[in-house]
Amino acid sequence: MEKKGLITPKKLQGFWELMPKQQIYFSSLLNKLENVFQQNCFVPLDTPVLEYSETLLAKSGGDTDKEVYRFTKGSTDMCMRYDLTVPLARFVSMHKEELSFPFKRYQIGKVYRGERPQKGRFREFYQCDADIIGNESLSLVADAECVNLLEKCFDALNLEVEIHLSNRKILSGFIAEIKKEDKSNEILIVLDKLAKIPLSQAQAQLSELGLSTSESEKIINLAKTTGNIKEINQKLGNFCLNSLFQEGLSELNEVAKTLNLFNSKTVTFDLSIIRGHNYYTGTVFEAFLKNKQNLGAVGGGGRFENLCNYFSDKAMPGVGMSIGITRLFDLLMEQDYFDLSKTNDIDCAIITFDETFNEGLKLVTSLREKGIKAETFYENKTFKSKMKEANRRQVKYVIIVGEDEIKTEEYTLKNMQTSEQYKLKIEDLIEKIKSDRM
Amino acid sequence: MEKKGLITPKKLQGFWELMPKQQIYFSSLLNKLENVFQQNCFVPLDTPVLEYSETLLAKSGGDTDKEVYRFTKGSTDMCMRYDLTVPLARFVSMHKEELSFPFKRYQIGKVYRGERPQKGRFREFYQCDADIIGNESLSLVADAECVNLLEKCFDALNLEVEIHLSNRKILSGFIAEIKKEDKSNEILIVLDKLAKIPLSQAQAQLSELGLSTSESEKIINLAKTTGNIKEINQKLGNFCLNSLFQEGLSELNEVAKTLNLFNSKTVTFDLSIIRGHNYYTGTVFEAFLKNKQNLGAVGGGGRFENLCNYFSDKAMPGVGMSIGITRLFDLLMEQDYFDLSKTNDIDCAIITFDETFNEGLKLVTSLREKGIKAETFYENKTFKSKMKEANRRQVKYVIIVGEDEIKTEEYTLKNMQTSEQYKLKIEDLIEKIKSDRM
Repeated sequence: MEKKGLITPKKLQGFWELMPKQQIYFSSLLNKLENVFQQNCFVPLDTPVLEYSETLLAKSGGDTDKEVYRFTKGSTDMCMRYDLTVPLARFVSMHKEELSFPFKRYQIGKVYRGERPQKGRFREFYQCDADIIGNESLSLVADAECVNLLEKCFDALNLEVEIHLSNRKILSGFIAEIKKEDKSNEILIVLDKLAKIPLSQAQAQLSELGLSTSESEKIINLAKTTGNIKEINQKLGNFCLNSLFQEGLSELNEVAKTLNLFNSKTVTFDLSIIRGHNYYTGTVFEAFLKNKQNLGAVGGGGRFENLCNYFSDKAMPGVGMSIGITRLFDLLMEQDYFDLSKTNDIDCAIITFDETFNEGLKLVTSLREKGIKAETFYENKTFKSKMKEANRRQVKYVIIVGEDEIKTEEYTLKNMQTSEQYKLKIEDLIEKIKSDRM
Repeated sequence: MEKKGLITPKKLQGFWELMPKQQIYFSSLLNKLENVFQQNCFVPLDTPVLEYSETLLAKSGGDTDKEVYRFTKGSTDMCMRYDLTVPLARFVSMHKEELSFPFKRYQIGKVYRGERPQKGRFREFYQCDADIIGNESLSLVADAECVNLLEKCFDALNLEVEIHLSNRKILSGFIAEIKKEDKSNEILIVLDKLAKIPLSQAQAQLSELGLSTSESEKIINLAKTTGNIKEINQKLGNFCLNSLFQEGLSELNEVAKTLNLFNSKTVTFDLSIIRGHNYYTGTVFEAFLKNKQNLGAVGGGGRFENLCNYFSDKAMPGVGMSIGITRLFDLLMEQDYFDLSKTNDIDCAIITFDETFNEGLKLVTSLREKGIKAETFYENKTFKSKMKEANRRQVKYVIIVGEDEIKTEEYTLKNMQTSEQYKLKIEDLIEKIKSDRM
């Protein structure tokens, strides 16, 4: 029975959109993350969503090109960003002379990937990144700082995590030792899947890549090495004398030591951590929710040798961390993890009668000026329908404004959850509602 | 001397991007606006940047089509949003059954218009909108609430404004009275330009539209009417007996009365306020900076009869306000209006010697845990270069950590602006730095 000319309103498939209560909760999480970043002296950056295709696709290849939203307008070939790292590289390259290094920036912004929509994957989602970029060199303190920052982020989100940390140079050093550098990426891809595929399958794949049975066994054992830093040193100190391997081990020790100074509590060492991107070159880490390991890594990061190699021949080494906050929120929301009942947009509703409506609005004004989210349901005409609306919207407190209340300047505050009632002066009302919000 | 294969990093023309200190300031303004919206019981919405072209262009025509970023991916024809109103209409239409009405939502988000870049105009900019949508009806209290909200926004931004308020029905009623409804839009467009073009030119244009000299004079006088509500009533009470005119005047009085209850202080009545969009049907208002009227309107809004007329045949009347925060910030920044020196990303720098570096990091950890943005310049190796970096970055406080300081647990805090020095225990350091931030 559609009216002629009407359009059925639709949201694009695979795009994420929250209802108000969910959005209030989600926004509060983003605010918490921002506070952590600022507290740790990271500065905000807000790059455009669109970039020249030439800039954005400089380093990419393969899948990125297919997934990216690319189009021309006039004679300009442009793309929507698919991550926040390439825009960072563009920004740092353009403003190298004006910025202070190490440059510590965070960015929370939407990115776009036109991939097939599936559970937990969206075509538009928030990336939440913090990176430290050095000018030609960068201390390993920065690596520890990013790992610690990720811990602090989850702490602020009130989520218990364990961070698994490795250094890619260890596995890469072993691969160099057995002279398989040319297959390094392929080998790491197999090792990255160890937890998901049967051992025999991994062995078969490594054998196809030219590893002997003993080499396969050794590298699989290596990748399965976990423990605290002391245990790692005991297990690996004499495992392989390759210099890259030893450098990785020494870097791992340096990061472990610095993490102690940062008061880090949740890090364990785990050589199976590789992270997909092949641009990571040293420290790599991933965060897993305690008791929810099945969700996979919910954050991670690592060290890269050169952020800007497509834009400049000066090395800009960096280390960063990232949280897939959209996917994380979506998965936890599905498990009813969040108590959305606490995200009320209204602290209290002012319920008036016809003849006290104006006084009600004045009270709303005073309460809002004092920081109370007060609402009066001006669309509901009768006392009864206003009360009903307050109930429907699960407002915790109502304040009843009758003619007596105006005369005595004492209002009836009713807690809708407990049905308790109080007669209070306006200052005491405010006190009561505010103390209850804590 | 470019290395072969390097790409020159470039930002798209007409796209806005801030340097860190500016961004810190700008973000703080957005936060302040969000707080105002939440304080007034508006809920956040965060719709996708992309929409189906069919949805987004439903109501548009003319210029919008040319300016919009539209493209196809696969078989999907989509657009980047050019405002936040159409996505709101789409959202409200889709979720009508689940939402509470009046639905009060705010959205601060980037929108895209591929227009010719010029001073104060960008192709990507933040729109900062708050709207109240009714289900079939909406009280005039909502109009006053939006006007008052705009006042509160500028108050939070610490900008003095004057809000000019009118009701379109007054001019439209007069146009109906002289039987020129068919030219209504064109007449309003001429009146909208009154402040910018010579009177004779306006008269000539009105004459071309078929108005007699006396009608032109009358409507120009009408559009020039300003004053408080009492003065408006005196001037206009008997000006025109047309029922639409009288309805407009009566609505203006109702809004004025409610604004008083909301403790509004900055509103003046001004019948020259029309606002370009022809979808406004009643209340219209614009905000001007005091002493900076030449910047033009920096915010505004109004009442519309039906938000969702392209999606549904049920009336969803609404009223909204909007601030062009990107343009406003850009113009004021150009006039050095903001004191960016106060937006430091660092509260204090910890200056260490080689042998106290680890103790320095521990101190950074303790201070950050206590909410102090403490930084140690780990890339600078010597005491001297660390001090130089603190100076260069205009850090207000440095804390010097020598071996004596570690033994006595009393640190030297130096105010780099006044050169004052204090020897303080860690708790007193924190106290001192925090109290100074207020």
